[in-house]
Amino acid sequence: MFQLFHLSPDKGTSLQKQLREQIATAILNGNIPLDTPLPSSRKLAQQLGIARNTVVLAYEHLLDDGYLIARERRGYFVNPDILAGRVESPAGKVDSPAGKVNSQIGKGGNKAGQVDGQAEATTPDTYLPDWEQRFKIRPSEQQNIVKAQDWQSYDYPFIYGQFDEKIFPSVNWRECCRDAASDAAVSDWASDSMDHDDPRLIEQIRTRLLPRRGVWASPEQILVTVGSQQSLFMLVQLLLDQQSVLGLEEPGYVDVRNIASLHQCQLKPLAIDKRGLVVNDQLNDCDLIYTTPSHQCPTTVTMPIERRYELLRKASQENFLIIEDDYESETNFDSKPNPALKSLDESDRVIYIGSLSKTLAPGLRLGYVVASERLIEEARALRRLMIRHPASNNQRAAALFLERGYHDALVMNIARNYQVRWRAMNEALTQHLPGCHDTPTFGGSCYWVRGPEGLDAGMLKRRAAEESIFIEPGAIHFYGANSPKDCVPKNYFRLGFSSISTDRIEPGIKKLAAIIRELCPEV
Amino acid sequence: MFQLFHLSPDKGTSLQKQLREQIATAILNGNIPLDTPLPSSRKLAQQLGIARNTVVLAYEHLLDDGYLIARERRGYFVNPDILAGRVESPAGKVDSPAGKVNSQIGKGGNKAGQVDGQAEATTPDTYLPDWEQRFKIRPSEQQNIVKAQDWQSYDYPFIYGQFDEKIFPSVNWRECCRDAASDAAVSDWASDSMDHDDPRLIEQIRTRLLPRRGVWASPEQILVTVGSQQSLFMLVQLLLDQQSVLGLEEPGYVDVRNIASLHQCQLKPLAIDKRGLVVNDQLNDCDLIYTTPSHQCPTTVTMPIERRYELLRKASQENFLIIEDDYESETNFDSKPNPALKSLDESDRVIYIGSLSKTLAPGLRLGYVVASERLIEEARALRRLMIRHPASNNQRAAALFLERGYHDALVMNIARNYQVRWRAMNEALTQHLPGCHDTPTFGGSCYWVRGPEGLDAGMLKRRAAEESIFIEPGAIHFYGANSPKDCVPKNYFRLGFSSISTDRIEPGIKKLAAIIRELCPEV
Repeated sequence: MFQLFHLSPDKGTSLQKQLREQIATAILNGNIPLDTPLPSSRKLAQQLGIARNTVVLAYEHLLDDGYLIARERRGYFVNPDILAGRVESPAGKVDSPAGKVNSQIGKGGNKAGQVDGQAEATTPDTYLPDWEQRFKIRPSEQQNIVKAQDWQSYDYPFIYGQFDEKIFPSVNWRECCRDAASDAAVSDWASDSMDHDDPRLIEQIRTRLLPRRGVWASPEQILVTVGSQQSLFMLVQLLLDQQSVLGLEEPGYVDVRNIASLHQCQLKPLAIDKRGLVVNDQLNDCDLIYTTPSHQCPTTVTMPIERRYELLRKASQENFLIIEDDYESETNFDSKPNPALKSLDESDRVIYIGSLSKTLAPGLRLGYVVASERLIEEARALRRLMIRHPASNNQRAAALFLERGYHDALVMNIARNYQVRWRAMNEALTQHLPGCHDTPTFGGSCYWVRGPEGLDAGMLKRRAAEESIFIEPGAIHFYGANSPKDCVPKNYFRLGFSSISTDRIEPGIKKLAAIIRELCPEV
Repeated sequence: MFQLFHLSPDKGTSLQKQLREQIATAILNGNIPLDTPLPSSRKLAQQLGIARNTVVLAYEHLLDDGYLIARERRGYFVNPDILAGRVESPAGKVDSPAGKVNSQIGKGGNKAGQVDGQAEATTPDTYLPDWEQRFKIRPSEQQNIVKAQDWQSYDYPFIYGQFDEKIFPSVNWRECCRDAASDAAVSDWASDSMDHDDPRLIEQIRTRLLPRRGVWASPEQILVTVGSQQSLFMLVQLLLDQQSVLGLEEPGYVDVRNIASLHQCQLKPLAIDKRGLVVNDQLNDCDLIYTTPSHQCPTTVTMPIERRYELLRKASQENFLIIEDDYESETNFDSKPNPALKSLDESDRVIYIGSLSKTLAPGLRLGYVVASERLIEEARALRRLMIRHPASNNQRAAALFLERGYHDALVMNIARNYQVRWRAMNEALTQHLPGCHDTPTFGGSCYWVRGPEGLDAGMLKRRAAEESIFIEPGAIHFYGANSPKDCVPKNYFRLGFSSISTDRIEPGIKKLAAIIRELCPEV
């Protein structure tokens, strides 16, 4: 049995840990008899060809964890308690491969016994539910942005919104994770804190993140969320119903459209121009407007300050609310960036959302909403019902990361790196695809490119993938995408530069331009 | 300036880290002039009375992070780039205390200028929104369980569902956190994985957690959630609308009732007895039933296996679905525990929810749903819209914790500790409050106590708190709590024992019994 253990120095974890894990697994699987002592450390070390001390340490650790018990003069035995409290496994089921059990049961309201002729163990009154009749909503049917899971394997990953491991602050983040797992920290965060956030994270958002954008808020005006996605989901659920009109920039952010569709509220596409959302009577009948003034999503244009004031005046006059999604506000390369809309808001109408996804890592899922105290009170109650609160250990780790100044250092590092790529993108696009783009003034991490008239960016994406180039077609950002297909321009696409290294940019765009010429030879 | 730095050996972090953090903060606040070199390490060390090497290391770290730049023969200067990209702070705002800005704006649809007579900076057309008219739902108005945030300061914390720092596996958890922050792990989890979970966590749930309960599932039948709360929220939103009937055990789990109320579906209270949910015609008109067979919440009774089969037959006959909340299934002290309802389900009707909250820590917010592939597909799409996915770094840390066998060791340790407390509780209750409880057969972490007829457990909670005893009144668990108040029995309360040490149990219950006698002298 022990000879079957496979230890390898290449696995990235120590031999001792590997041995420990494999013995624990063998014990839990019932593969080590209860009444026989384990081999002596000397013998096992010899068998496995490893140092005796490695075995000694592994045994000691397993003893501490309660997997083994020591019997005087007889050696180590499996502790039967470790196997207690579990349902006895039915014979034969233990090794059944994934997918064999239950997944054999198909869709629809059939009798179980009729599916695939598998009549065993089903009685005549065992009916399968008809799932299609059960669903009150069907989110899986919505169109959505598709990010290749394997984008890291592309040579030219012009993907948007992912991270760059060369920029990720590994050392500082590890330090904060370690400190967030100290005994004192654990005793702060391990409990269910019901509807509270880590006060230290709130304080850092309040005093360090928001002031960068000119926003000043009290702790009662801030709620931590599982990323901007959750912020939007909660705001839609709280503020809109089937009678409400949500104004959305066209083209705009897909996810907010999908969230609003799910809640069946009325969607109104709003025109944008080179200065972002157009402020005119198109806004009048909206109850709520979702806007991205820092860099309009997906076109990346920035709303100038005069228009921001105009928008706020209009909101007050026409009595609508505004969600300001200030995503990527940290990645601007402007020495005098525009302040957030929220910072100019005197009528308490702007609901500000931000996150750590575009700086630290999207996988962490940490965001925040800043709004009127009364709104935050309801959002907090809703969040409690939805999830209680975002993981508290991550809230503490992020708070430490901010407290120690690591986030500001990271923002500077990102800006430095992105600025170089932003220029390289601009030069390469100007050279290889002239006239197809406007340079985003505020910075950000992508370019919005208008291909030649006849181009089908969906086709381009597929052809580009064959040459290991990842791009994102733009059609999905148009609301029309859910209605008459012909009205939606198909020739737009987005090129992200947050994950591609600078030296890959020019060659990638050169190749891409060649594919476009091949697809649209008449241009 | 530097003399104002306050370093203290008592703060739990090293002097070097404290110094670093304070210099970074001073730089970000603009308190260190750009054109003057920082004091030499020798000088600053002297001023602060610390070792010179501490200052040298702090300076080097700040240099690495980009806070400082070195100028040849002139020393360290503040790097102006660290202050770039931020909105210039308006004079006077920097030091405005929390709550002064914006929070001065009150509720209601008043003109901003009229509130508190603060007319400055508001124009006649700046109206405040009327929030009360805006809310489509008002979750803050729901009744909910209130957990004292300061429960750790009680002498006798009979609180339910919190953690015990003496049991928390600090060393093993820290190891997993560290390894989940390794470069290789970060590159796995830092990206936005859209709707995917960490496959290693899914594998551990599938092969290690579920088999303990007799459940076998394929990876496509499992979805990770931000705790059971989110599992329930998603299932209600997917499967119920205003025409649907949700059957709930009475008394039962408050949160599921509140989630369902929020979505305006019809609630039907279902009778329970000493063997859990009563299976009879009361179930016939339900579309979905929420049940807690392992330990009924809050009464802790366990449903015997015969009734489990009965319930499944009924579900098939009457075509309803079942949510099995198998919370605390790990804390049973029975050598032959009942298998989960899900493990007996042949008609694919049982939706199983579990979490790591009752073993590892509720603050981590990690749970899972196991159900039909088709249902998981829709739940995954909904989760993507709600939050995308639970924090990926925690998914990885939990996967490592399970892979290394630490979770099984923890479960054994919890069972050992709880079993002792469970006995101590039983003895103390039998002695001091005879006839008021049934011993939970499956284990768990609480007792459900029926006080004397006239007892008001709300009053008891307040009186007990004065003697540093924390208890939870039971009335909230009755659905009637939202309707005629007189019908709800007020004499029940819950005593949790997951956070109280064994030696406190008997004295705590003795004191509590004395208070009850004082409140109900006639008994």
